Amino acid sequence: MEYRSLLSIADLTDGEVDALLDSAARFLPRIEQGGFKDSTLRGTSVIMLFYEASTRTRVSFELAGKMLSSDTINVSAKGSSAEKGETLQDTAQTLAAMHHNVVVIRHPAADAARVFKAHFPYAVINAGSGRGQHPTQALLDAFTLRRHGAFAAGKSLAVVGDITHSRVMRSNLQLLSRRGVDVTLVAPPTLMPEGWQGMAAGPGRLTWTTDIDGVLPQVDVVMMLRMQRERMAGGLITNLDEYSKLYGLNRRRLALMRDDALIMHPGPVNRGVEVSEDVFADPRCRINDQVTAGLALRCALLCWACGKEPGSEPSAANAAI
Amino acid sequence: MEYRSLLSIADLTDGEVDALLDSAARFLPRIEQGGFKDSTLRGTSVIMLFYEASTRTRVSFELAGKMLSSDTINVSAKGSSAEKGETLQDTAQTLAAMHHNVVVIRHPAADAARVFKAHFPYAVINAGSGRGQHPTQALLDAFTLRRHGAFAAGKSLAVVGDITHSRVMRSNLQLLSRRGVDVTLVAPPTLMPEGWQGMAAGPGRLTWTTDIDGVLPQVDVVMMLRMQRERMAGGLITNLDEYSKLYGLNRRRLALMRDDALIMHPGPVNRGVEVSEDVFADPRCRINDQVTAGLALRCALLCWACGKEPGSEPSAANAAI
Amino acid sequence: MEYRSLLSIADLTDGEVDALLDSAARFLPRIEQGGFKDSTLRGTSVIMLFYEASTRTRVSFELAGKMLSSDTINVSAKGSSAEKGETLQDTAQTLAAMHHNVVVIRHPAADAARVFKAHFPYAVINAGSGRGQHPTQALLDAFTLRRHGAFAAGKSLAVVGDITHSRVMRSNLQLLSRRGVDVTLVAPPTLMPEGWQGMAAGPGRLTWTTDIDGVLPQVDVVMMLRMQRERMAGGLITNLDEYSKLYGLNRRRLALMRDDALIMHPGPVNRGVEVSEDVFADPRCRINDQVTAGLALRCALLCWACGKEPGSEPSAANAAI
Repeated sequence: MEYRSLLSIADLTDGEVDALLDSAARFLPRIEQGGFKDSTLRGTSVIMLFYEASTRTRVSFELAGKMLSSDTINVSAKGSSAEKGETLQDTAQTLAAMHHNVVVIRHPAADAARVFKAHFPYAVINAGSGRGQHPTQALLDAFTLRRHGAFAAGKSLAVVGDITHSRVMRSNLQLLSRRGVDVTLVAPPTLMPEGWQGMAAGPGRLTWTTDIDGVLPQVDVVMMLRMQRERMAGGLITNLDEYSKLYGLNRRRLALMRDDALIMHPGPVNRGVEVSEDVFADPRCRINDQVTAGLALRCALLCWACGKEPGSEPSAANAAI
Repeated sequence: MEYRSLLSIADLTDGEVDALLDSAARFLPRIEQGGFKDSTLRGTSVIMLFYEASTRTRVSFELAGKMLSSDTINVSAKGSSAEKGETLQDTAQTLAAMHHNVVVIRHPAADAARVFKAHFPYAVINAGSGRGQHPTQALLDAFTLRRHGAFAAGKSLAVVGDITHSRVMRSNLQLLSRRGVDVTLVAPPTLMPEGWQGMAAGPGRLTWTTDIDGVLPQVDVVMMLRMQRERMAGGLITNLDEYSKLYGLNRRRLALMRDDALIMHPGPVNRGVEVSEDVFADPRCRINDQVTAGLALRCALLCWACGKEPGSEPSAANAAI
Repeated sequence: MEYRSLLSIADLTDGEVDALLDSAARFLPRIEQGGFKDSTLRGTSVIMLFYEASTRTRVSFELAGKMLSSDTINVSAKGSSAEKGETLQDTAQTLAAMHHNVVVIRHPAADAARVFKAHFPYAVINAGSGRGQHPTQALLDAFTLRRHGAFAAGKSLAVVGDITHSRVMRSNLQLLSRRGVDVTLVAPPTLMPEGWQGMAAGPGRLTWTTDIDGVLPQVDVVMMLRMQRERMAGGLITNLDEYSKLYGLNRRRLALMRDDALIMHPGPVNRGVEVSEDVFADPRCRINDQVTAGLALRCALLCWACGKEPGSEPSAANAAI
């Protein structure tokens, strides 16, 4: 097998991105009709190496792997050798020595996936590394945007929230600016990283404002970020109520947005903080679609990582096995 | 597929209960001969969403799913988005967006399964919710009773222990009283819930006593409840030794029981508290049979939840695949 | 099926050991070419009952089981009935009542596997029990030694480190001394157990020294043990730096070893404590080979435990299923 890794959005050419999104689009109906089982990845194993809490990302990869008949194995920091002080390098070499085919890694350190990859000769997929990258989130967001024609030059997107700590934003920004999407960061100065001007990687314009009410009527897409309480030591915001008033998406602000705009959020949401209840009832909300897209995308990605052409087995074949 | 959910015993008609027990009876020999593997649920996924500790219930559902070729995925509160404060509603919508087919949920809140179901369009199975319901336990107990002719009008059963906190007792009481089984609750006043008289749902009589020695010679079945230390803050009993002396099933009390009586316990047991060592050696003890029944019942239930007829594959078919 | 258990190296005859190593040797190339999937154990279930942290052992057993099409289920102390105080005996009876075919158990008590086996009628495999035994580690070490001709009478091996707390050493010593391999224990007096002279079980000589520099030039194999910080309360060594200077394998000591010697370590390593960075770059280092051997050995062992002949399915058969 010919293995491919995804550590950062920068690893993918535009052609590869398009091919992955096309492949995900073919998986989507198979998922929407209640899931599937085929033997595309039979004989492979996927390790989910999760050093941080996760439901949607881990379950999404695990289900994708299982539906494709890969053997999936979970390893978390709790109950693993990491508790005994094993380094990431040694964990990588150990898993390499078992000849696992794919390792999906989530880790609090920004360079974790890259360190791991340096010692692992098969496929590594970064499922979120510290403040660094979360490339599969960017791809599933691109998938959702593309379905609505918003993954294209000249389109505009606002990202609202904790820019400093957001790996989701970093990966999205790289992918979107490359395609010519204009991105406006909306955040208080305390949540903006130094050097934010350099985070874009392409022709799309990158701007920053604190004026959310001025931005909402302009953009094609509003992407709300989770206000990550667990990462917010040190008084970067005075309190969540204050933050919610200044930057939360609520009923009043929904009225400012265009009728054809999209509302996105990587999840898990903090209801009542960055988004109010009204957001979920709004027809422009794509939050659940993003989750479905994530599963389709991860099916496509696991096949790509193992160098396997996704099968298009009819349900009759399923019944026969 | 046509999905069915089981949140409470009240969701099932008598006909459905009988059909499930019949189906479980057909699974039983396949389990007793060392397990099986068939493809009845191939192409489906079952999520075990366990917010409380469990071995037997979780393993039982997981093994049932795997033997039927469903893709099973574990999610616990530890290491999941629940740690990040995600609501049950949002978890339900997320799992719905991945089009999982069955969610088996255990949760400390009595109404958790119902809240989850309100946001999940496929099958939900309640695997124990707070002080509320534990319907699969009631069904497996009914299975065990039925094998010995005790799931029938006019039969009598004593439930001994912490009635207030027991979801096992609540579900059993609903199911048994409907069938005309007479139930005697045996517990100190501090472990009896207010309004216990209203917990029965059918023609079977419901009574309460503190006199275990008076009850034991009368009944067809004695169901001992776990003295749940972890739920017993606030001095409801003075100490476990005292409780054991007053309400524990020990050698002396075994001698009071009828020769054809049955001894049951939902597990895990606290040896030396509610039951003494002698109980396990007693030929009337059905505690391990309950565990086997639970696996058979959960096989039947997963098929029912997915609207699939259980396969009756001969072992030759297994070998061929 | 005819079940076999492995609690201790003493359970195996020399013939059984050789047969297991032969079987593992046949699995090795199938693993090295990226893993496999066959149906040898289809219809069986393997429970990984891990009461202690582990990555390599648990993942190794789980992957072995999955590649052979067994249904694998994880149970850890966290989140299980052990948290509710269930005894090992009751856990064994519960899993027996579900008719699981194999239980792989790791536990902090030295006699845990034996206690479990007394109440479980199918196969039990000891995956490490307290200071007692770790027989699968001894077998995979024997596999690695045999490939290099060192699993034979007259060969010599030094074990360096915490002899008192090492179950790895106990199992290895039994197996190696039986085959006539001479073993030298290298450790400070505070890390030597009373009665160490009686730990060998065969014709191989057993000696003890504190002089590592004197031993290294003599032996065919150096097996470094993990300095288990988590077990080292009570001042058995003054500090890790001191230990490392006196007993660690570093660049200077590597130069003392013979060119054809082997370096082994059961993992996970404490880099900079018992082994320096230089060890991993040394061509005599077999640490990663041991991991691969472990996976091959566990494939062989699960087949043996279930009384199944390992399949030798060509990849064509895989594709067909």
